[in-house]
Amino acid sequence: MSSFAIGVDLGGTNLRIAAIDGEGKQLETITTGAEVKRGRDVVIGEMSRAILALADKHRHNGKLLGIGIGVPGLIDLETGMLRESPNLPGWHDYPVKSEIERRIHSPVILENDANVAALGEKWLGAGKETDSICMITLGTGVGGGIILNGKIWHGMRGMAGELGHVTVYPDGPPCKCGNSGCLEQYASATAIKRMAVEAIATGKAPDLARALSEIPEFSAKVVHQMASNGVAAAQKIFESVGRALGIALGNYVNIFNSPMYVIGGGVSSAWDAFSPVMYEELERRSFVYRVTKPQKNLPARNHTMINRAMLGSDAGLIGAAYLGLGVVE
Amino acid sequence: MSSFAIGVDLGGTNLRIAAIDGEGKQLETITTGAEVKRGRDVVIGEMSRAILALADKHRHNGKLLGIGIGVPGLIDLETGMLRESPNLPGWHDYPVKSEIERRIHSPVILENDANVAALGEKWLGAGKETDSICMITLGTGVGGGIILNGKIWHGMRGMAGELGHVTVYPDGPPCKCGNSGCLEQYASATAIKRMAVEAIATGKAPDLARALSEIPEFSAKVVHQMASNGVAAAQKIFESVGRALGIALGNYVNIFNSPMYVIGGGVSSAWDAFSPVMYEELERRSFVYRVTKPQKNLPARNHTMINRAMLGSDAGLIGAAYLGLGVVE
Repeated sequence: MSSFAIGVDLGGTNLRIAAIDGEGKQLETITTGAEVKRGRDVVIGEMSRAILALADKHRHNGKLLGIGIGVPGLIDLETGMLRESPNLPGWHDYPVKSEIERRIHSPVILENDANVAALGEKWLGAGKETDSICMITLGTGVGGGIILNGKIWHGMRGMAGELGHVTVYPDGPPCKCGNSGCLEQYASATAIKRMAVEAIATGKAPDLARALSEIPEFSAKVVHQMASNGVAAAQKIFESVGRALGIALGNYVNIFNSPMYVIGGGVSSAWDAFSPVMYEELERRSFVYRVTKPQKNLPARNHTMINRAMLGSDAGLIGAAYLGLGVVE
Repeated sequence: MSSFAIGVDLGGTNLRIAAIDGEGKQLETITTGAEVKRGRDVVIGEMSRAILALADKHRHNGKLLGIGIGVPGLIDLETGMLRESPNLPGWHDYPVKSEIERRIHSPVILENDANVAALGEKWLGAGKETDSICMITLGTGVGGGIILNGKIWHGMRGMAGELGHVTVYPDGPPCKCGNSGCLEQYASATAIKRMAVEAIATGKAPDLARALSEIPEFSAKVVHQMASNGVAAAQKIFESVGRALGIALGNYVNIFNSPMYVIGGGVSSAWDAFSPVMYEELERRSFVYRVTKPQKNLPARNHTMINRAMLGSDAGLIGAAYLGLGVVE
């Protein structure tokens, strides 16, 4: 009989809980109806019930090795408090870890959501063959996770890796984190919608304006669809996404000289629309990238690779379960 | 009888070689007359002769444990080649390590100059009490060194830690590294002089213009002197330095969540002139800094400290010797 772990991915909109075995196979995955905006007590309650239900149901699959939970925001690892969470209003200074443990009577491992996504991609996804990756997750917000020599780089108390909150344009739009011009303001789904609305306001994007009025669920996905269909105003938005990503990646490459940078999250499916400008900008801005980019006379192991994530929306679940398995700290 | 190491600091203008013992005491330090602009063969020749002379002379002080050499630019640690060096024109793709070893018939440890400075501050300076620091050296250029858990973070092949070449203002002045708007373009001695010349060109800085025409050695130091004397145009320049540093530090704090960031190099002596705006900008831009900055109810070990370097221009020499001592990789 093998053993398993439970991984939880608490996103800005969804809550998912899975029982996952030592090979990364999802034995069962629950997507709760609990909308995160219904508040922390409802969410933590549903999460705890789902964890207990999965633990009980998969008892026959072996020993439950541990429970890992990915949560958006700045976590103080020492106290298990969520210190700041721009995408979870009202969760500020909330003792997430102890609130869950009190309900399920078991210890849990709390971790930032983008960190567990990076860990997931490192374990079973794009970063499988390499020791150190930086992962950028382009979702409602922009998260980041840094894996150095196989381990999450936590910094002092778990707040490291906020790669979505580096300043790209110092005088750019205000960010929920208090800064202005963060990467998140250019490369998140929220930013893409905002840029579309801004483009429409100029009166120079009639196609976008029509889409906004006709399509009930106007989203970053719709803007991408329009870019794919050749709508210039939409293409321009993804060029802005690519430019901001290229500037930020240039910084990361000059800072880390890591072998791989992984881009995931929903927005990464618009890769075709933003990546040409991203690469162009990266190459222009990073001298470290220029001497290490994939090229004929450089052995593959010394390349700087910019890769798309491979696990899709499961990266966080898988990484959280990996923590539960107890393989890494 | 104790033992010692030889440390070499090859800067953009000076070359210094020292015999240093296991406690960090400088037994002897040579500052050669070799101006770096005289070319790589002259410099490497003088360096090699000085190393051999020190090794011979201090034989009675014990065993020579090793030789560490700090060099500005992107070093490929695997091959010992200097790949790029914006501040050493003509040294591009030069096999520094083997050229030195050929002359002195001993192995040497090559390292980026800002990395050895960071290592020096970690060993005997500002970072003595902490495990992980990021050091920014504000000199002719802006260098960076990242120490994580006591070791230099090298990245793939030694090119990590280029903290002076993160983009602060994407449309800023061109940088020697090929990017535009790098931190180096706002916080180096070279940048301070450039900003002074630009201020004079506007016609709105008559005091600076007078200084430029009267003082034969118009330097960043002179601009700082004028700022200290209350010249508004000079003060404004250091506010720009502080703003750029604050933006960059905000990025580093959000990325690393390290306990300490050390600012060294000649320009750091203008601390009084740039640090108020630097702190203001850092606090506004980094939510990680805001929850970890020194405050009453947070234990000291959990503070994010921004400190001035303590070893002055000796940091590089000391860190290079530390490498020679063989204490760290």
